[in-house]
Amino acid sequence: MSGKDIGWSSFRPMGNEARYLQDAFESGWVSGGGYVNRLETELDHIFAGSKCFAVSNGTSALQLAFQTLGVEAGDRVIVPAFCFQAAGNVLSQLGAEPVFCDIDSSTWNQTVDTIKRAMTDGVVGIVIVHNYGRTAPSEEIVAWAKAHNLWVIEDCAEAWFSKYNGRYVGLFGDIATFSMHATKTIAAGEGGVVMINDHSLAERLRLLRSHGLDRSKTHYLHELAGNNYRLSNLLAAVAYGQLECRSKIEANQKARMEAYYRRLNGHWAFELQSAIKGASDNLWAVGLRLNSHLLTISRDQLIAELSKCRIETRPGFYPASALHYNTRYLKEMVPVSEAVAKDVVVLPCSSNMTEDDISYVCDELERLLNTYSRQASPHSFVDLKSDRSTTKKLTAFLSSLGKGDGSFRYFQNRNLDVVFKHDVSILLENEAAPIGYGHIETESGVSWLGIAVAEDYVGKGWGKLIMTKLVNAAMHAAIERLNLKVDRTNVSAVRLYQSFGFVAVETKSDDKALHMERALVAAK
Amino acid sequence: MSGKDIGWSSFRPMGNEARYLQDAFESGWVSGGGYVNRLETELDHIFAGSKCFAVSNGTSALQLAFQTLGVEAGDRVIVPAFCFQAAGNVLSQLGAEPVFCDIDSSTWNQTVDTIKRAMTDGVVGIVIVHNYGRTAPSEEIVAWAKAHNLWVIEDCAEAWFSKYNGRYVGLFGDIATFSMHATKTIAAGEGGVVMINDHSLAERLRLLRSHGLDRSKTHYLHELAGNNYRLSNLLAAVAYGQLECRSKIEANQKARMEAYYRRLNGHWAFELQSAIKGASDNLWAVGLRLNSHLLTISRDQLIAELSKCRIETRPGFYPASALHYNTRYLKEMVPVSEAVAKDVVVLPCSSNMTEDDISYVCDELERLLNTYSRQASPHSFVDLKSDRSTTKKLTAFLSSLGKGDGSFRYFQNRNLDVVFKHDVSILLENEAAPIGYGHIETESGVSWLGIAVAEDYVGKGWGKLIMTKLVNAAMHAAIERLNLKVDRTNVSAVRLYQSFGFVAVETKSDDKALHMERALVAAK
Repeated sequence: MSGKDIGWSSFRPMGNEARYLQDAFESGWVSGGGYVNRLETELDHIFAGSKCFAVSNGTSALQLAFQTLGVEAGDRVIVPAFCFQAAGNVLSQLGAEPVFCDIDSSTWNQTVDTIKRAMTDGVVGIVIVHNYGRTAPSEEIVAWAKAHNLWVIEDCAEAWFSKYNGRYVGLFGDIATFSMHATKTIAAGEGGVVMINDHSLAERLRLLRSHGLDRSKTHYLHELAGNNYRLSNLLAAVAYGQLECRSKIEANQKARMEAYYRRLNGHWAFELQSAIKGASDNLWAVGLRLNSHLLTISRDQLIAELSKCRIETRPGFYPASALHYNTRYLKEMVPVSEAVAKDVVVLPCSSNMTEDDISYVCDELERLLNTYSRQASPHSFVDLKSDRSTTKKLTAFLSSLGKGDGSFRYFQNRNLDVVFKHDVSILLENEAAPIGYGHIETESGVSWLGIAVAEDYVGKGWGKLIMTKLVNAAMHAAIERLNLKVDRTNVSAVRLYQSFGFVAVETKSDDKALHMERALVAAK
Repeated sequence: MSGKDIGWSSFRPMGNEARYLQDAFESGWVSGGGYVNRLETELDHIFAGSKCFAVSNGTSALQLAFQTLGVEAGDRVIVPAFCFQAAGNVLSQLGAEPVFCDIDSSTWNQTVDTIKRAMTDGVVGIVIVHNYGRTAPSEEIVAWAKAHNLWVIEDCAEAWFSKYNGRYVGLFGDIATFSMHATKTIAAGEGGVVMINDHSLAERLRLLRSHGLDRSKTHYLHELAGNNYRLSNLLAAVAYGQLECRSKIEANQKARMEAYYRRLNGHWAFELQSAIKGASDNLWAVGLRLNSHLLTISRDQLIAELSKCRIETRPGFYPASALHYNTRYLKEMVPVSEAVAKDVVVLPCSSNMTEDDISYVCDELERLLNTYSRQASPHSFVDLKSDRSTTKKLTAFLSSLGKGDGSFRYFQNRNLDVVFKHDVSILLENEAAPIGYGHIETESGVSWLGIAVAEDYVGKGWGKLIMTKLVNAAMHAAIERLNLKVDRTNVSAVRLYQSFGFVAVETKSDDKALHMERALVAAK
């Protein structure tokens, strides 16, 4: 098994691609041609109600979308800080300004809340990116954007055929872009698609794609200052062949991703990217966010070890804030993006992978994680609401808090039975000893989060583990907003909460406790 | 013969293109791959000393070149007003500002002189365009640019393998760009090349081509805000197949162009585009500039008539000044570009044309020109220096000047024998009657041009014919600069001279005569 290279991604013809390519070449139509038309017609059929245009690649698609929407030097556009940085880069090339918004700590995508926080003067639009095929809450983002008179582009490069609330992503905003790079769900080699939902923009886009010229009218009389974003008929032939057998491609992709999720869900060493309620994701790639404090090797060392097993993986995207040329654009901190980015590993998603290949990848991954585990024994969570007997464990934990109780006063004036009224109440155990606690409690419609870590375990990453568990539980309970209070002087705790997207609520500055909050998206 | 459609251009495989395309597809390397490397290595070999990069198309090549040279919003770049408007359009998209310079009336390309006149504050570089494969004087332009601390891009989209002073165009400036569109000399379908002569820029260009990423280093750590300008390995395979048999392609192209020139040179109804001294042009297309005053149909009507004969032609490029979105950029008039643009017709240049096809095109063209000739009989030029007997004709002409002599006082205080001391001295005859006169005379190293048209023939385009003849003669005589004087109040004459690139020399405003001058490039 280990004799085979498992590439991160690969191009795999599954239908008439070769035949159509040869046909396009022999027709002599190698620039424009019939396959471009067939591809676009088929796309229009799939994305009913929209108008699709084949272009040279996914980044060109974004540039063309920006130009269609009239983005000019000086305009500001909100883009996620964690994603492949195509939109941000193109905006800066156009003399426009990317405004980076943060992401949700579980879904790794933007939300209305992170966009709201990034909103500033001069913003003309929003780019939504559906990272790894997981849908961002497009419907809610678009509703907010419309209320603020902003356009929306959905970058669906990684999210071909993912659905949200029963509709394909890409159908929510004004314009959507897709990539047909060799590694993508529908591949042309190099290629992209721009999809217009606002038909009034279609003619402008069509002109801009080919130098602003309408060759059916007057040669060389440019109507707009366009560019060349055309897709060669040769590549369109390949893409059309792919699109024709999209159900086979999609089924194959879903089977791979499901095989991964069956094996890896709930693993102690990482969290998988969460889906939102209403999503029917056609996941393009499986990203793991490592619980790195539980490992004795770094994310990059793990990637190197997997590479020795001939398994090609990818790190998470670098956050926009880590790219030196973005310094001038950074208006606010993007702590969640930074926290997620450094721990993500993306597993191979090649379309030619067999179930055995996926088993091999998972076997080697688990073997390495066990080899480099920092834990003597596995940790586990106890549900305090499940059984009265857990009260003893909680008592034991509270006595182990030591000096730490200075910052966790919750039980000082409460009976332990309060946990039965909590939305979530958990104890984290290691070697059967309790080392951390967390809860979510709703009072008068306001949900509060509280955590505590035993003194000997403080600053070792266990707080992050408890936070992840609580936030995911809150998302599954469809809690819309979480609040917490933290000692203003407890800098490391404040940082931890920031890395989960909590931000300070304006409050009296002489208050010892800082009130923080964050919005949540509902989990699937 | 007329049963066949003569397309304006076509793609024609002449070697291993089909085999390489299939090989690239079957290799699974459809984005990057071995053919991209082979193509670039072969280009590096041809353009020895330079580093070549395959890109998605010729316009992307320009955008990448601008970004490599650090063009930013607000920068100004000189580009020709007469050319395919790729560079100007891309500059405006980047928030930069095209500064349009005029062209030479015979070569239809920029010169040092037209660039000098366009020079203004904030200019950072120059784009040279070699229209239709005719070389602009790159060596002189680059020398001037270097003296003014400007970079130079040569847009060689239409000038593959044209040479100037023994070197390929594209080797003169800092960066050159090429197109591999289906219609071009080397065709990939869609494709382009960026060629770097300044090797210090090569690494920056390589990064910008692929998102600013060096995949051999850290994934997703963008070093620069790049874009996607990559050429698919599939298209690179086609281009490599073409490049391999470039001598066949070039010989075929040269044979077609020479067949056209043999048939059409010296025709009464149009001027062919002039080559400059030192040029060895690999002409991509044959442009005719109609002597439209001699025809009863317009340029566009002629194109429509040829189309009825199933011959596809193209008009000249619209000048930058005719494109509404350029209004904000226009700093100075570009009268030569406007004059040339409206009269140019470009004949079919398809690589699959036979000699018979070319004969057919020329036959039909001449038939139409004769059908729609405004002349009762053909005009001709008499060389006044050739024979003493021509003095009689000159005398007859001078007596026919009528009121027109008010503005042509040259012979009022000179003996007619002065013509024998002229560089050029010509009489234009129609039905054996003299209707126009022109000369170039050099005194103390300064060359002066003078023309006169008989009263009955004024305002009918004959002056333009004489001017063309004189300017071409001056170019062949390697005269570097022409001067003339014209009555300030003779607006139509001033306009005529402007359309030949003459500009007013600063002079006392109370002088009745306006002194105008223009520089010349030496003709081949």
